[in-house]
Amino acid sequence: MKDIQGGVCAPLGFKAAGIHCGIRKNKSKKDLALIVSDVMCHAASTYTLNKVKGAPIAVTKQHLQNGEAKAIICNSGNANTCNPDGEDIANAVCDLCADALKINVDDIIVASTGVIGQPLSLEPFQDHMQELVDALGNQNSSDACEGIMTTDTVKKEYAVEFELEGKTCHVGAIAKGSGMIHPNMATMLAFVTTDVAISKDMLNEVIHEVVDDTFNMVSVDGDTSTNDMLSVMANGLAHNQEIVQKDDYYQIFKNALMYICTCLSKGIAKDGEGATKLLTCKVTNAQSIKDAKVVAKSVITSSLFKAAMFGRDANWGRILCAIGYSDANYDVDKIEVSLASLKGEICVCQKGRGYPFSEEKALEILSEDEIDIFINLHDGNFQATAWGCDLTYDYVKINGDYRT
Amino acid sequence: MKDIQGGVCAPLGFKAAGIHCGIRKNKSKKDLALIVSDVMCHAASTYTLNKVKGAPIAVTKQHLQNGEAKAIICNSGNANTCNPDGEDIANAVCDLCADALKINVDDIIVASTGVIGQPLSLEPFQDHMQELVDALGNQNSSDACEGIMTTDTVKKEYAVEFELEGKTCHVGAIAKGSGMIHPNMATMLAFVTTDVAISKDMLNEVIHEVVDDTFNMVSVDGDTSTNDMLSVMANGLAHNQEIVQKDDYYQIFKNALMYICTCLSKGIAKDGEGATKLLTCKVTNAQSIKDAKVVAKSVITSSLFKAAMFGRDANWGRILCAIGYSDANYDVDKIEVSLASLKGEICVCQKGRGYPFSEEKALEILSEDEIDIFINLHDGNFQATAWGCDLTYDYVKINGDYRT
Repeated sequence: MKDIQGGVCAPLGFKAAGIHCGIRKNKSKKDLALIVSDVMCHAASTYTLNKVKGAPIAVTKQHLQNGEAKAIICNSGNANTCNPDGEDIANAVCDLCADALKINVDDIIVASTGVIGQPLSLEPFQDHMQELVDALGNQNSSDACEGIMTTDTVKKEYAVEFELEGKTCHVGAIAKGSGMIHPNMATMLAFVTTDVAISKDMLNEVIHEVVDDTFNMVSVDGDTSTNDMLSVMANGLAHNQEIVQKDDYYQIFKNALMYICTCLSKGIAKDGEGATKLLTCKVTNAQSIKDAKVVAKSVITSSLFKAAMFGRDANWGRILCAIGYSDANYDVDKIEVSLASLKGEICVCQKGRGYPFSEEKALEILSEDEIDIFINLHDGNFQATAWGCDLTYDYVKINGDYRT
Repeated sequence: MKDIQGGVCAPLGFKAAGIHCGIRKNKSKKDLALIVSDVMCHAASTYTLNKVKGAPIAVTKQHLQNGEAKAIICNSGNANTCNPDGEDIANAVCDLCADALKINVDDIIVASTGVIGQPLSLEPFQDHMQELVDALGNQNSSDACEGIMTTDTVKKEYAVEFELEGKTCHVGAIAKGSGMIHPNMATMLAFVTTDVAISKDMLNEVIHEVVDDTFNMVSVDGDTSTNDMLSVMANGLAHNQEIVQKDDYYQIFKNALMYICTCLSKGIAKDGEGATKLLTCKVTNAQSIKDAKVVAKSVITSSLFKAAMFGRDANWGRILCAIGYSDANYDVDKIEVSLASLKGEICVCQKGRGYPFSEEKALEILSEDEIDIFINLHDGNFQATAWGCDLTYDYVKINGDYRT
């Protein structure tokens, strides 16, 4: 498996586009994205567990009932959530898109991201749908990626190439993250394309397995968004024998998908609103995977710990505190904690008690922009990793006045 | 019932003291507090549910097994948590205190608050215990209150006077809060004194009932501290007939305790680390008390909503989002939300959808330092209130470098 360029356009038969259509006032910011497959795809999605859901999610769920799709359309700048006419607008966007692409409206996945509770006008879509379709090309993944960004500062776009039975296969993806990120069974927005041939059932299966270990292990601010969604379209153009069961080929494809989704998850954590540091918390030797996950997410979500990381303060007591209030099984008196970065590693806690360390060395380690927190529970054989970011002045600044 | 001065010394037969003993470097900051009753008290505590617990909690639990106590000793500047010799130190502090007061060591409640995982030296206690005891007086509640403060900026000290069967009774209290505040079955540190006569069982019962509706409904940062504790000492010197069942007198005492604990809870929320605003979220017409509480706490805990309040931004979509990811029962399409302060009230959401409001008026309302968020679920008959604060630059600043 190797990293390649091209994002969602890396797999065979996918085109993408991103334009400014006027949902955002700032004309230099793209606000509408389109991803289209030349041929029909098997498709699957995972969705936010927030009970307040964006209107596009209801429409996408309807369209994906048959497990097939050909296109994804997504706007930024407005979440189309908590609007009286939200579903009508989402349906109308799909109609416009279907007409311009000359495809069936049921084959369109629709998504929105941005401010909640502001009416979304159909006009920008009407005026620019043809322009969007005309812009489709097989090197425009970056434009599509820009089109779905909100307060993101960097593009999250990845692709890999690998082999299945001698056939060259690809997985590509774009995602947006930033704030309101604390996924639960689904995630921010992530769109994945692949030319692998895989059955609808197996596609649905594999994305849930992968999302649980990737997007669901990211937290920026503990807030689970109303519009989280991950969608995968698999068009089969790699011409491998269709994956219909959990065999070795399923595993190879899952590995590729896991790699891509891990890259996106880390990218989203590192580019969390106001973030200056990527925090990776790896919990080992837990009694169960659930225990490992719960502990890792609790640490990565703690405001106090996140603020300490911003301040390069090796205040490990806050790690113990966050482990302590997590709903997990472990023995406090066995916990070992280390902090690490490219500058080295220090043990700060052993057997649940403070372990002497050099504050100077700690400062050096914590001055890096990627910090690892290793928590060894010495209590079993399971492990999990969660990703997060520090809590900074800029998070407060960005979210103190997001709407203006 | 009327507010009076005197804090924990307002009830008959209680003395208090607070001094600087050297746990903190800053000599102008008191770091040791003592509260003593002239006679034996019935006593009860609630404790943090964090599995990582401060050593003093283990010692206090032991001492309160018989439901009796005569004194509370508490230091700030060091949490005595995650230390190898934590319980030994806590026991030694109690020994020193018992000797100086000439009381039984089992009658002492001990508590610590401050940094986790730093060794606590016995020396300051040895050197200053007699000075502390000598400083005891019946007007020194404020000194004791200062002695337990960490990053608190204002003292939380309240007292009330009321009647039971024609006898004048009192409840007084001090508390510390600020950060790492998201109580679960217990709270930060709060010490309550009363001269009411009440049985051990009833005292234990009433504090759990009151804590559930007060301290457990406060959140500053979602972090549940390792050292949370509320202790009540009732010495019976008001000479009312001892309360032994849940009769009218129980209810009168509970009302007084509820009032005091509500004052402390609001005080703690308003003085949350870096806070500029007290946020009060009142949820009405829920299907159950639990649903009302879960919704109120979810809103008050949302980093995104808290940052919006700091920015005086009526971004009500974040309220809906936080309701949406709470684990409560309700009908999204019935939710009504209003924002209010001394400057007026505006409805921002009806039937789960945006409701037109004046941004100018919203800014005026949100510029006040006490903001009410009214959430009417239109789905039942139960209600709950939670208290929190905004998320500010100063929270990040304070917690980015707490240990130095």
